[in-house]
Amino acid sequence: MTKPLLQMALDATDLDTAFQSVSRVAEQLDVIEVGTILAFADGVNSVAKVREKYPNHIVVCDMKITDASAILTKLALDAGANWVTVSAAAHIETIRAAKKVADQHQGEIQIELYGHWTFEDARAWYDMGITQAIYHRSRDAELAGVSWTDDDLSKMQQLSDIGIELSITGGIVPADLYLFKQIKVKSFIAGRALASDEGVSIAEAFHREIAKFW
Amino acid sequence: MTKPLLQMALDATDLDTAFQSVSRVAEQLDVIEVGTILAFADGVNSVAKVREKYPNHIVVCDMKITDASAILTKLALDAGANWVTVSAAAHIETIRAAKKVADQHQGEIQIELYGHWTFEDARAWYDMGITQAIYHRSRDAELAGVSWTDDDLSKMQQLSDIGIELSITGGIVPADLYLFKQIKVKSFIAGRALASDEGVSIAEAFHREIAKFW
Repeated sequence: MTKPLLQMALDATDLDTAFQSVSRVAEQLDVIEVGTILAFADGVNSVAKVREKYPNHIVVCDMKITDASAILTKLALDAGANWVTVSAAAHIETIRAAKKVADQHQGEIQIELYGHWTFEDARAWYDMGITQAIYHRSRDAELAGVSWTDDDLSKMQQLSDIGIELSITGGIVPADLYLFKQIKVKSFIAGRALASDEGVSIAEAFHREIAKFW
Repeated sequence: MTKPLLQMALDATDLDTAFQSVSRVAEQLDVIEVGTILAFADGVNSVAKVREKYPNHIVVCDMKITDASAILTKLALDAGANWVTVSAAAHIETIRAAKKVADQHQGEIQIELYGHWTFEDARAWYDMGITQAIYHRSRDAELAGVSWTDDDLSKMQQLSDIGIELSITGGIVPADLYLFKQIKVKSFIAGRALASDEGVSIAEAFHREIAKFW
């Protein structure tokens, strides 16, 4: 299995704050995500600015596209994103249209797993060549104050078995990484933890755990 | 039943084009929608500019919020939107958080009906006080080249019976309006048709049909 990447989500409502939060840990990151909040707050201009400042990182634009996928995918990739996210709730033909534009621009589509998606959906995404999805810790788990449920882990394993690499997010901490060692992990996504005063040491802890299990 | 409103969706990738398309028909409109494309292209600044230019229209920001709903709802309403859209794929607690912020700002939430939503979901939305949803002509119907299927109409009727007012969209033309006369319609949404050279006469035709059936 390839080594999971470390991804930071920038979810500030302005670019200055976002840049401040990423600057200290940027060298420890593989992927920088322009979160939905920042993308709406400042438009795809935020993607262009992140690309300009970080030319060598993978940049994701977290649009959670649900419709108008060809235009939105092009908007994100033209601005400098490598990957763009599409909602699992989008119609299969909407997802196919996004994939086509991504292929034309050497970009990749990531499916955001929200709503009542099924494994049949996941196989259809994989069959059209989509190999990435984003798995969020369930809101129910979050609300119940538990970290990762057996149900989450079982769903991740099934997606992994289909062939889909997962980017995992939702209050994830380095000590949890061992839970996912059987799963095809594309990246671990953190936000506030990496933006904190302990950001650098937390990033280092992520990399230590990644090296241990992959 | 209250009279359906006429809504224009602005889906250009820049504000100038959007303003050009709306200026001729603005007097015929009740609702102006900052579409997802425009909202990502120019950020919520586009909402502020539309609000500034059209202080008396209802303004919708079509964010299709799926997560981070409190912050995104506030972003849209602070910029001047009256209504903001939330994806049916969002977790029920995510939707509740959006509703709470909307209530604090005298705004309203509209559910965007994408993905495998259920009538049980719809009742849960209605039970928390959400009375609006957006119904898109199914992509399957669109791809098959048919206008509105019996399945679409039956689903709309069931949502209407739950108490949810629908904004209806997807290549809708004035001659189709009679199809929806039994349904609680909040608005009819058109985009390109209203932006065309015949935009004013098409808008008038919408209002004539609305007056005929409601």
